[in-house]
Amino acid sequence: MPRDSTSYVLYYSPGAASMAVHWMLIELGVSFESQLIDIDAGRQHDPAYLRLNPAGRVPTLMVDGTPRHESVALLILLAERHPEAALAPEPGSVDRAAWLEMMVYLANTILPAMRDWFYAGSDGDPAGAEAVRALACRRLDAAWDKLDAHLGESHDYLIGDKLSTADFMAVMLMRWTRNMPRPALGWPNLARYIRQLRARPSFTELNAREGLTEWRNEEA
Amino acid sequence: MPRDSTSYVLYYSPGAASMAVHWMLIELGVSFESQLIDIDAGRQHDPAYLRLNPAGRVPTLMVDGTPRHESVALLILLAERHPEAALAPEPGSVDRAAWLEMMVYLANTILPAMRDWFYAGSDGDPAGAEAVRALACRRLDAAWDKLDAHLGESHDYLIGDKLSTADFMAVMLMRWTRNMPRPALGWPNLARYIRQLRARPSFTELNAREGLTEWRNEEA
Ligand SMILES: N[C@@H](CCC(=O)N[C@@H](CS)C(=O)NCC(=O)O)C(=O)O
Ligand SMILES: N[C@@H](CCC(=O)N[C@@H](CS)C(=O)NCC(=O)O)C(=O)O
Repeated sequence: MPRDSTSYVLYYSPGAASMAVHWMLIELGVSFESQLIDIDAGRQHDPAYLRLNPAGRVPTLMVDGTPRHESVALLILLAERHPEAALAPEPGSVDRAAWLEMMVYLANTILPAMRDWFYAGSDGDPAGAEAVRALACRRLDAAWDKLDAHLGESHDYLIGDKLSTADFMAVMLMRWTRNMPRPALGWPNLARYIRQLRARPSFTELNAREGLTEWRNEEA
Repeated sequence: MPRDSTSYVLYYSPGAASMAVHWMLIELGVSFESQLIDIDAGRQHDPAYLRLNPAGRVPTLMVDGTPRHESVALLILLAERHPEAALAPEPGSVDRAAWLEMMVYLANTILPAMRDWFYAGSDGDPAGAEAVRALACRRLDAAWDKLDAHLGESHDYLIGDKLSTADFMAVMLMRWTRNMPRPALGWPNLARYIRQLRARPSFTELNAREGLTEWRNEEA
């Protein structure tokens, strides 16, 4: 069932949690509008944006006129709305459970540790930020170990040896490690995986649209 | 498409993250086996269990002979496998996006803060545990405020005014606050919601099967 995809409006900030959704919209080839909410400039706190996203976060995706949130939920929703793109294993298929598990794992393990790493001092008491960030680092290292082992030497994608929403999310999260003590590119299977996903034309287009120049294949 | 539901085996520990899945299995009325993994006794580290769940966590749900993890993913999977129970809004329906967003929100906001609260000293450096737990408390308070406002005075369920997987997850998480500084029962709309969900026969059955006596309606 094709839809009028111009009903999507993505509120994004360059390189932020909106990036996975932005990537998927480009990969789907649907038409959508994008609206820049520069979080470095504090635009997520503008009253007009807070009406769309009371938490003051990106992304927000307007779907048929209603603001929707949570990057992982948006990726799942888009996969359901555009089944012809096959960016998720079909319900009832062998890979479905593994895909759901991976999406939830990325959402509840890696994403919160990233929030801790980048926002410990503003979400919580700055005096405790060092302890929070130390635990985040430990958890991220364990997660990268796990994903590196999961990919092994032979898998190019996280699920079912084909591109899925899990790859958009995972590569975005891996990008965020580029200035961390242990960047994801330091894990051999993750490095291979990252380079292969970054080679997609949609990733080049994504970086161009968000005005991002770091962490592309030519510079790696 | 009805399935041979005896192909489910749930590995659970009383009152742990397995409880939402256990509740849903009972509510579905499908037949399943359950296997006790007593986490207070450290049974999650037994080599036989680690083969099913290398992270040493509960729940694990065997689905058609394969071990699956992550409570939120398991709830979504079960809803897909048993559409006749209508425990999730159908794909394409008006409430679908809100349900996905709520499931991901519970997974990536409340659940990780709970992990921090209960495991800060063992997941990380015990010296930093107090700071980690303080941030967890702050985030949980904000989350309960948000859910209390979301329910308001008139909603009995989190999504679409009918029972869904989100309610199993949310009530389980609320139960975990019973000995915290600010138990969820202290929020007026959450209290009403909790009492109404706890009144379900499936919740009574769940507590009986897990041998739990605290936090039931008669004692509240
Ligand atoms: N769980 C949310 C997380 C969103 C989030 O934390 N976004 C960050 C950028 S990566 C943000 O908006 N930060 C601005 C702020 O918190 O002020 C999702 O996955 O969509
Ligand atoms: N993200 C997992 C969390 C599972 C989890 O942390 N379970 C806890 C009990 S609530 C556990 O197994 N703890 C034992 C341990 O970590 O040693 C899920 O939702 O299934």
